[in-house]
Amino acid sequence: MDPSGKRSADVTEIDTYLSENADRFEEELRELLRIPSVSTESRFAGDVQRCAEWMAADMERAGLETVEVIPTDGHPVVYAEHQADVESPTVLIYGHYDVQPTDPDDLWTTPPFEPDVREGRLYARGSTDDKGQLHMHLRALEARLRTGAGVPANVKLVVEGEEEIGSRHLEGFLKENRRRLACDTVMISDTVMLSPELPAITVGLRGLAYAEVTVRGPNRDLHSGQYGGAVQNPANALAAIIAGLKDQYGRVTIPGFYDPVQEMTGDERAQLREIPLDPADLQRDLSVPALVGEAGYSPVEQLWYRPTLDVNGMISGFTGEGAKTVLPAEARAKISMRLVPDQVFEEIQEAFRKHVLALAPEGVTVHVEAHHGAAPWRADPGGPVFEAASAALEEAFGHKPLLICEGGSIPLVPMFERILGAPAVLIGFGLPGSNLHGPDEWLNLEVYHRGIGALASMWGRLAG
Amino acid sequence: MDPSGKRSADVTEIDTYLSENADRFEEELRELLRIPSVSTESRFAGDVQRCAEWMAADMERAGLETVEVIPTDGHPVVYAEHQADVESPTVLIYGHYDVQPTDPDDLWTTPPFEPDVREGRLYARGSTDDKGQLHMHLRALEARLRTGAGVPANVKLVVEGEEEIGSRHLEGFLKENRRRLACDTVMISDTVMLSPELPAITVGLRGLAYAEVTVRGPNRDLHSGQYGGAVQNPANALAAIIAGLKDQYGRVTIPGFYDPVQEMTGDERAQLREIPLDPADLQRDLSVPALVGEAGYSPVEQLWYRPTLDVNGMISGFTGEGAKTVLPAEARAKISMRLVPDQVFEEIQEAFRKHVLALAPEGVTVHVEAHHGAAPWRADPGGPVFEAASAALEEAFGHKPLLICEGGSIPLVPMFERILGAPAVLIGFGLPGSNLHGPDEWLNLEVYHRGIGALASMWGRLAG
Repeated sequence: MDPSGKRSADVTEIDTYLSENADRFEEELRELLRIPSVSTESRFAGDVQRCAEWMAADMERAGLETVEVIPTDGHPVVYAEHQADVESPTVLIYGHYDVQPTDPDDLWTTPPFEPDVREGRLYARGSTDDKGQLHMHLRALEARLRTGAGVPANVKLVVEGEEEIGSRHLEGFLKENRRRLACDTVMISDTVMLSPELPAITVGLRGLAYAEVTVRGPNRDLHSGQYGGAVQNPANALAAIIAGLKDQYGRVTIPGFYDPVQEMTGDERAQLREIPLDPADLQRDLSVPALVGEAGYSPVEQLWYRPTLDVNGMISGFTGEGAKTVLPAEARAKISMRLVPDQVFEEIQEAFRKHVLALAPEGVTVHVEAHHGAAPWRADPGGPVFEAASAALEEAFGHKPLLICEGGSIPLVPMFERILGAPAVLIGFGLPGSNLHGPDEWLNLEVYHRGIGALASMWGRLAG
Repeated sequence: MDPSGKRSADVTEIDTYLSENADRFEEELRELLRIPSVSTESRFAGDVQRCAEWMAADMERAGLETVEVIPTDGHPVVYAEHQADVESPTVLIYGHYDVQPTDPDDLWTTPPFEPDVREGRLYARGSTDDKGQLHMHLRALEARLRTGAGVPANVKLVVEGEEEIGSRHLEGFLKENRRRLACDTVMISDTVMLSPELPAITVGLRGLAYAEVTVRGPNRDLHSGQYGGAVQNPANALAAIIAGLKDQYGRVTIPGFYDPVQEMTGDERAQLREIPLDPADLQRDLSVPALVGEAGYSPVEQLWYRPTLDVNGMISGFTGEGAKTVLPAEARAKISMRLVPDQVFEEIQEAFRKHVLALAPEGVTVHVEAHHGAAPWRADPGGPVFEAASAALEEAFGHKPLLICEGGSIPLVPMFERILGAPAVLIGFGLPGSNLHGPDEWLNLEVYHRGIGALASMWGRLAG
């Protein structure tokens, strides 16, 4: 058997299948996007269930076996398999069929659950995050399974309905099904590429430590004239605490904060300089007078390789229209830190708490509550799936995939690795500005079709 | 005519009238307090107007003449007179019928506009500030005018509806009506006494400079993971600005801020030590772990003779329940300074603005809006009205009135003096802890009735 000949024949057959079925794929994706599977709002619970059932039917349509809608204490997990043989690698594909809320609805050009195509973009909630990307994986598998090209790997699909509410029951599901879900690689497509021509594999995610600080002063709001000057003001005190959390160089002042941080290597820095992200574009897009971050690092380095600290919200006293001369009884702030390897979010939470208490001025009491956290993650790029994906993406898009990071956190990536003991490969087809969590979310249809081709090709490259 | 005999007869007659009408007085005061005349919020505009009309009717009920609701470009002034003769002194009484906002409403034990009596206190927004004290003046006049004891002075009442929004149209009103309002003394009851047994005349007020600081960063709220670390966070920036406004000794850092401040004399410091205000009581009342103010000054000195700076409110980003990973586009704070002679509020506003801009970190734009201001004020105690009031208070309360200051501002006190050229006498019946601008504002009903008696007696003492 001539492997290259076999492959060429497959490729032609697959390409023909993909182009003959392209319209139907889009039609079916639109059907999926019409289901308002908003997991954050209980009024959509029926739609979320309906979406799970739609996904199961779609997996059967793709030619997968042992399709199952598995209940959890929340929304169900949809599961399916393709069995090759014990010699072949096992790849677990993760995705989610739930979507973000759509408000403010009036900012959508067309209704969020009535998919609309404009200038090559498919607009709908979930078009990129994550229904569209999940649909691409299923179409790639379908193309191989329905043409007889076959999938030379064991495939396990885990598709959850609670990603947008923190994957509440995923950890339990993974632990309970550890044996059934055993795999060599976890593949996730819920990230981005930098432009329609530049495919990407995401190799790093920042972690998160989120906390709330409450500063309490007098037992009631006071008249700022009658008491101002003799009483510590909780809002001034909170401001002093927040100001004390970063130094003039934009560095977080929490003792030990940077100790576990892996300093960038010269190679990493050199590689990042190749990433075609222009700080001037970022500055222009955000309309800020200057980009400001930790001294000594470029914006891309700051976002991908450096931890940081941000106030997410703060409130105290009178915030209405006009003026009120109140000395507030209380001030509160939500503050989160983005973490990088090897920071441990539980340790950072505790160090943050201690530091905030140490910064608290006299005359107030300060309480720090830890909210959720997420571990940072960095891939060790390589291995057969990574290599196959990389080569397939280069072939499909005409450019070697960039190895990028994301400044945000995807807690389930390190969670999959930890529980299943298999490395994750993150191939994303979202695009900058595709409004994942905002109005007018869209998917680039050319990327959609090209990406399906790349994924179909990837499976072929896994063959012995 | 035997003046002392005449006075005794009057006094008996007045006392009888006051005790016979005490219940009705309280009932009418409750009626007044039920009107939500919140001048700071436009949705209450109708109620403010209704309150003005109620006041006019009440002045007529008190026996005053030429009662008039005088429109301004904002809320109306209610005006009335009592004419004695040209020989008699002319006393202008000022009060205000508008009230502070009530939020947070859920912290009120009973609703702010449903007056409730508990343990000798009348709870309602405006009960002390200033409807209650205004009502006392009207009842004292009523008691003399309705009994035939008479008021041996020309009395002019100026009652405005915009005190809580900085008396926006009062200056214009005073200037336009300078001749009609000509007087020898301005009497104002919008201040406090130190305890129900210790009457007081207020001889000093701090001034005010109130400003709003807006810090703008990116043109939209950002995902704190995707952008955090490369973009200046407006909330962090605002905190840094606020923290920079005071040093570790509690001193305001604005350049030149203390230059015009009159340092306390040894005599003043000695006199203040006689004021029966125990810092331990203040600390206990406020339940604060410590009193904190400018180093080197006692709490009374800090409150009465030293300027200060307080955040009155601040808001940014996500302030709801739970966590949202947002990097806010904007952060805002309301900040006010209390001033002492000879600080000039316009100059302080400008120095504040410059200093805030100087403190602003890179990467954000900062806007400082000056709200209202007030000149600080200090009395030169003495004159017939001051002496009559002092004697009447001593008689009614059994203690010589203390000469106190207030940490708060009453901008219109120096304004009246400046425009009408007459000294102000400030007799207050509020009590410490009566929550003037907070939830559960109250008025001590025993002080209310005793104070009416004192004011009625004061007028008798002005007779030749």
